[in-house]
Amino acid sequence: MFEIKDRDGLARVGMLITDRGAVTTPTLMPVLNPNIALIKVADMQKMGCEIVITNGYIFKKSNIRRDVHDVLNFDGPVMTDSGTFQSHIYGGIEFSNEEMLEFQREIGSDIATIVDEFVEPDDEYELAKSKTLKTISRAKGAYENHERTLALPVQGGLYKNLRRRCAEAYYDYEAIFPLGGVVPLMESQRYEELIDVILTCKRYLNPSMPVHLFGCGHPILFAIAALFGCDLFDSAAYSKFAAEDKFMFESGTVSLNNIEEDICTCPACLKYSIDEIKQMEKSERTKLIAEHNLRISFQEIKRVRNAIKTGRIWELAEIRARGHPALLQGFNTMRKYKKLLEHYEPLNRKSSLGTGRESFYRPMVTRAVKRSTDCYISGFSYQSFVPCPAELKYTYPFGQTTMPYSKSAERMSKGTPGDEDTVKAIARMQFGKKAEKALLGGVLSFVKSKNGRIRNVLCDGKHILSLRAEDGYFSLKLEGAKKLLSLPYPEMRVVVGEESENPVREGKNVFAKFVVDADNIMIGNEVVIVNREDDLLGVGRALMVKEEMLTFKRGIAIKIREGTG
Amino acid sequence: MFEIKDRDGLARVGMLITDRGAVTTPTLMPVLNPNIALIKVADMQKMGCEIVITNGYIFKKSNIRRDVHDVLNFDGPVMTDSGTFQSHIYGGIEFSNEEMLEFQREIGSDIATIVDEFVEPDDEYELAKSKTLKTISRAKGAYENHERTLALPVQGGLYKNLRRRCAEAYYDYEAIFPLGGVVPLMESQRYEELIDVILTCKRYLNPSMPVHLFGCGHPILFAIAALFGCDLFDSAAYSKFAAEDKFMFESGTVSLNNIEEDICTCPACLKYSIDEIKQMEKSERTKLIAEHNLRISFQEIKRVRNAIKTGRIWELAEIRARGHPALLQGFNTMRKYKKLLEHYEPLNRKSSLGTGRESFYRPMVTRAVKRSTDCYISGFSYQSFVPCPAELKYTYPFGQTTMPYSKSAERMSKGTPGDEDTVKAIARMQFGKKAEKALLGGVLSFVKSKNGRIRNVLCDGKHILSLRAEDGYFSLKLEGAKKLLSLPYPEMRVVVGEESENPVREGKNVFAKFVVDADNIMIGNEVVIVNREDDLLGVGRALMVKEEMLTFKRGIAIKIREGTG
Repeated sequence: MFEIKDRDGLARVGMLITDRGAVTTPTLMPVLNPNIALIKVADMQKMGCEIVITNGYIFKKSNIRRDVHDVLNFDGPVMTDSGTFQSHIYGGIEFSNEEMLEFQREIGSDIATIVDEFVEPDDEYELAKSKTLKTISRAKGAYENHERTLALPVQGGLYKNLRRRCAEAYYDYEAIFPLGGVVPLMESQRYEELIDVILTCKRYLNPSMPVHLFGCGHPILFAIAALFGCDLFDSAAYSKFAAEDKFMFESGTVSLNNIEEDICTCPACLKYSIDEIKQMEKSERTKLIAEHNLRISFQEIKRVRNAIKTGRIWELAEIRARGHPALLQGFNTMRKYKKLLEHYEPLNRKSSLGTGRESFYRPMVTRAVKRSTDCYISGFSYQSFVPCPAELKYTYPFGQTTMPYSKSAERMSKGTPGDEDTVKAIARMQFGKKAEKALLGGVLSFVKSKNGRIRNVLCDGKHILSLRAEDGYFSLKLEGAKKLLSLPYPEMRVVVGEESENPVREGKNVFAKFVVDADNIMIGNEVVIVNREDDLLGVGRALMVKEEMLTFKRGIAIKIREGTG
Repeated sequence: MFEIKDRDGLARVGMLITDRGAVTTPTLMPVLNPNIALIKVADMQKMGCEIVITNGYIFKKSNIRRDVHDVLNFDGPVMTDSGTFQSHIYGGIEFSNEEMLEFQREIGSDIATIVDEFVEPDDEYELAKSKTLKTISRAKGAYENHERTLALPVQGGLYKNLRRRCAEAYYDYEAIFPLGGVVPLMESQRYEELIDVILTCKRYLNPSMPVHLFGCGHPILFAIAALFGCDLFDSAAYSKFAAEDKFMFESGTVSLNNIEEDICTCPACLKYSIDEIKQMEKSERTKLIAEHNLRISFQEIKRVRNAIKTGRIWELAEIRARGHPALLQGFNTMRKYKKLLEHYEPLNRKSSLGTGRESFYRPMVTRAVKRSTDCYISGFSYQSFVPCPAELKYTYPFGQTTMPYSKSAERMSKGTPGDEDTVKAIARMQFGKKAEKALLGGVLSFVKSKNGRIRNVLCDGKHILSLRAEDGYFSLKLEGAKKLLSLPYPEMRVVVGEESENPVREGKNVFAKFVVDADNIMIGNEVVIVNREDDLLGVGRALMVKEEMLTFKRGIAIKIREGTG
């Protein structure tokens, strides 16, 4: 039901498959009220809307028992909420979980939400625990008795062990996982805690399932939430803000009384001057601003997707974080999740740009500094932002990254590495020291390009590696893979089941569902593909980490380079 | 011919008055080529274009001797360039300064540019000096013999003393001052040097004249250049970038091949999907992208103006600077111009938000830290970003600013100031220690609001000051002004000529042209208005610094509070 189409670390452009068609993520699900239609759904679709959310509880309270798609005049996928948020606001609702699930089934919801227990950020531990356990048990009951796609909120409040417990309890369920209880955090700009919740949940949730940041509808948050692995957003904010004369922008909210120029060129704003907007009748203006808010929200959704596809989501998220000091401070909480972020950090990107001090804490940097310590052989080079081994000055991130605060164009450097040292250092950086020894044990020789740069590496006369100009890393050849098999199982390997053996040998990509075991692989790195008997089947480039390979039912795990034939 | 309508430090929203109507600045003058019309001028006007620039040299070379307005089909103001830039590219042009000025007059240019000598950034000192001196002498000749509005480029390359010499030579001229020789800096992202040039020129130029950043047409630079006092931009970049399939955004340039989603909602982009744009015929696509580029440029111009009007230009400029590491690094060059920036820094703003480490170097912070050292009387409070006197915790910037990196919501503080200490500390912060003594010498008493906060300050029973809730500073009353007159002339004063005496007494604003002398006044601060005999005429709020009051021919220098009647 969910598949990764493109990615950058935890951020992913995905495809959510529903009975009513596929939806591209990250996306925003506008909240539709069955009783008030500020903007036509058809107009929302023109902006990029593919899925909407409405509240099953309001349907039930209003005694609307018709199909949601008819009521909303939308034949795409509709998610329904259960009334939990209303219980957070009013202290309780009158329907049970079973009643609400049955009702959502009755009105034809495509994704039904259980009535979970809303853990307030300031709930005491015992209360939070009991609410979380109730939520887990209701999710279990619903999952066992409900045939439709379910949304199972992760509760736990600010208690990381409870969030973990809930996320782990859901690990085997195929569902959508909203992160629950976060609206109060967003409302009072408690972004440090929000980022803590997101990254804690991401750490323990099944990585093959879509994550929904419940109630997040401000475009200032989309890039950051997507960077940390959220796939779905929803909100009525576009209309609530509009009612208060507030214009949403990807850089923050601007009140109408702080606008004295025609600062927006979206189709809604272009129709009128700002003075005309100020003089409009309130209801007409609310509609106009709601249209603006939704338009800017979907524009940001598309910018987020584009940034993920082009390797620029860190840049985008960091710039968005600067829209408010509290958000920037919250963003920096990610430094506590170094390990998780590095685990999903890709081997390479086309290029990277720093946006300020914050950029020096990206997993790109922390990993590069850590992994390169083993690679100093003949000297160092001060490349763009940190000293690096002289051998790695063309290797990602050192050669492809521009950072601010570099002291001068004239860089210090010391030592000129020979070919063997260069190859050794790159292999250590890319595969680790052990694998480097296994790969390069033998007599090395090199094929060079006209400008004298290494292109191919031969060991005992066999072509084992090719050096890529764009990122300064190696592509692995079959002869190289054979040498890597001397490493103890499962190092450097991805193991595939029987069904996949022949396709891989013939050069077909490896689908995640056929992976049965894997080493701790870096996304984007070269891997050796073997069967259960550890016979070499091919070499390829990993598109997932191990945990994803083992959980995804759809999508490609390894882009094949070469099969053994 | 030029007037300030609104401002924030060196940044200003101005009105440039031409024979063909008034133009609001900052603005972009699109470069129009008489031989190629990619976008209709009427369409540019819809985007916000009020003035254009075209090249007199190309007119002359193409032997077009008709009126520029007819040729360009535009009846608004047209500035013409002289061919200097072509001499930079081709090593020389065939027409003299006199010929080009005469020709520009002939074709009806509203703002004619002299043929100056383009100092290359890497010119040796002697060459740069001789080019600068030639430019100065041509400007002098032209100014004395030409009746139209002239653009007199400031040359000097990277030599600050030459830029200063040129700027000072122009001090008495009424003209537009383009900063010349900067295109090579922008082309190779030498932003540190660019900011150096801008701020050096601003320091020595007549502050009442508009400054044009020659060849600056990328929206990423508008906020930064405006922050540092540039009023006019011009460029053919919108069409040049379009021809290379490059989309300009306020956050940077994005090549078509890095766009995989419909990331823009401007009217040009909304007409097609990104895939359709990719498949368009080249010439049609160039036109479309040029339209997008110009639309985004004018959107940014309006955002810049709005930021100036609402006190948010530092926020905007800092965020834009993060669009490229080289730009951020260049931006930080402003730290070398602390004194200049503080000189123009206003007393207060509605509120301020930090965007990162960079924000701690704003003149707001450097001034606050410096001026508040004298104000510690009863203790300190850790307010939002720095420790401040306990008395000043509601005073700008301490009480109105939110910065990132604050360690915790629970703030340290020590001491609870009494009313007298509070009043003393605020008066020192706002007026300095000497003025505080003059003002508050006597028996103080206070009128308070219901919530116990000071509203009015009385000295020996007379109402001398009112405390404003919004910025925590005082409004000066006439009785206070009388006490300040005990300070030696011209401290705290603005001196006006005879023509202005009665209007001020009657409570009319003071126009700059009537100011004959002034103290070193803080923009936004309270001042005592006197005549040449040092008789008190009224009190008001300064909208300009001294140098501006003494040079501007138009516009309000002091917003009056009260006249002596």
